[in-house]
Amino acid sequence: MKLASFIHQGKRSYGVVTAAGVIDLGRRLGSRYPDLKALLAANALAQASRYAAEQADFRTEELEFLPVIEHPEKILCVGMNYAEKRKEFDQHNPAPTLFIRFPDSQTGHNAPVLKPRHSREFDYEGELAVIIGRRGENISRDRALSHVAGYSCYMDGSARDWQHSWFTAGKNWRQTGAFGPWMTTADEIPDPHSLAIRTWLNGRMVQEDTTASMIHKVAELIEYISTFTRLNAGDVIITGSPGGVGKKRNPPLFMQAGDRIEVEIEGIGHLSNVIMDAPAHALTAAH
Amino acid sequence: MKLASFIHQGKRSYGVVTAAGVIDLGRRLGSRYPDLKALLAANALAQASRYAAEQADFRTEELEFLPVIEHPEKILCVGMNYAEKRKEFDQHNPAPTLFIRFPDSQTGHNAPVLKPRHSREFDYEGELAVIIGRRGENISRDRALSHVAGYSCYMDGSARDWQHSWFTAGKNWRQTGAFGPWMTTADEIPDPHSLAIRTWLNGRMVQEDTTASMIHKVAELIEYISTFTRLNAGDVIITGSPGGVGKKRNPPLFMQAGDRIEVEIEGIGHLSNVIMDAPAHALTAAH
Repeated sequence: MKLASFIHQGKRSYGVVTAAGVIDLGRRLGSRYPDLKALLAANALAQASRYAAEQADFRTEELEFLPVIEHPEKILCVGMNYAEKRKEFDQHNPAPTLFIRFPDSQTGHNAPVLKPRHSREFDYEGELAVIIGRRGENISRDRALSHVAGYSCYMDGSARDWQHSWFTAGKNWRQTGAFGPWMTTADEIPDPHSLAIRTWLNGRMVQEDTTASMIHKVAELIEYISTFTRLNAGDVIITGSPGGVGKKRNPPLFMQAGDRIEVEIEGIGHLSNVIMDAPAHALTAAH
Repeated sequence: MKLASFIHQGKRSYGVVTAAGVIDLGRRLGSRYPDLKALLAANALAQASRYAAEQADFRTEELEFLPVIEHPEKILCVGMNYAEKRKEFDQHNPAPTLFIRFPDSQTGHNAPVLKPRHSREFDYEGELAVIIGRRGENISRDRALSHVAGYSCYMDGSARDWQHSWFTAGKNWRQTGAFGPWMTTADEIPDPHSLAIRTWLNGRMVQEDTTASMIHKVAELIEYISTFTRLNAGDVIITGSPGGVGKKRNPPLFMQAGDRIEVEIEGIGHLSNVIMDAPAHALTAAH
């Protein structure tokens, strides 16, 4: 089952995406579960799936995609998690590299990704996103995948000229992290480490690998992270990108306004966004 | 004016703390502003101050302090921001070192600080916390202090053996960041860089400096941070600790169950917490 968050006719909702269109779950379940995060927190995926065979309410073309989870409590991002990427960045520390994104740094499928005006090195990273379905602390590796609700694609847009060994400033510009188009539920992905992952910039393939190449596997990441912080339904772990990022190319290759960036993960989906320059005006007052 | 968040007789509230006791603002304004963050977001400090001279509703001893802001949208922490500390950690990067804490890593004044069971290097850091009162992006240095609602003390408890150059795992254990006792409003702190700051472990002074020694001053930090992410009312910037942390002592000095850790900042307050071992049981199910 593929579950998306979206705006339809001006209204925030979520639903099941099929080849025939979208079954609006917000309309059916919204009073109990106002958004997809709430649906996950209530462990109500089975309830959602009961509607999955109904007739579609509208076509996918009619909706505006939101980030799959719009306001996760925690977005944990793993850096340097593919062998090629580690070589490119000369990273040898054996612990998982972890940084945090704020929810307002996200955007949805087909929505603009904003190139920060103060960055000349706005880089792409195609990644597998893991969406937590069941809260837990101290989750052991062997039970970890039972805490996963589903998987999605993520384009972790990175201002390299603001990124340091602590990442924060390079990874939190508004609308730089594209998350979608939807979540494919975990029952359809028995092994998250057998998936082809590819990134295209303006139609040219710039990253190609398989999730088998991850150094710290999904189950190990959940074990490690849940040792020091509780994971909640709707939390997101972004598992790192393969080699081939723009910063380490010769010559370097960065994203500019008008470029199209795409991430596809086998069995999950195809995420596509166009880059726009962030608005120039300084926003300082409440708005 | 000193504003605290607390539990009184089982009920979450917030109020004005005076020498005579506590004026419960939740009781008076709670229907409009359910918590201190909402009061700040509504720019309603003036409304709160109208009650500041009323008779106290109860004594400070009767309440259980919460983190000054219990659920900030963003908690940004500055590392390596005092000259002595930079020397201790051999840090030369000129950009502000920034990492993020999740709200559930916090605790209040007088509440237990939990020593992570998997850390043998649980260290103290006494810091000045800045609480944002007015939302903004691209805030210039010269207008930055007008976005500050007030200041507080922070004890940024750090699991050094989990801390890397990306900080995340060392700084997000549950109940390791003590934040309080209260917020002193900015009108009482015309210059946040003229304040003595001291930390005591079991009555022994282990850090002593003045906020004049900060490398990146509060106004500069607000300018820098608001360039890449919007700051909202209730957001918190923790501005880094002076030298003298336990990790860099010879022999090293770490916190153990039963220890008392205290942070005092001139004109702001005195934060005191006792260390407890984190509970041993693995929590994996919803609770």
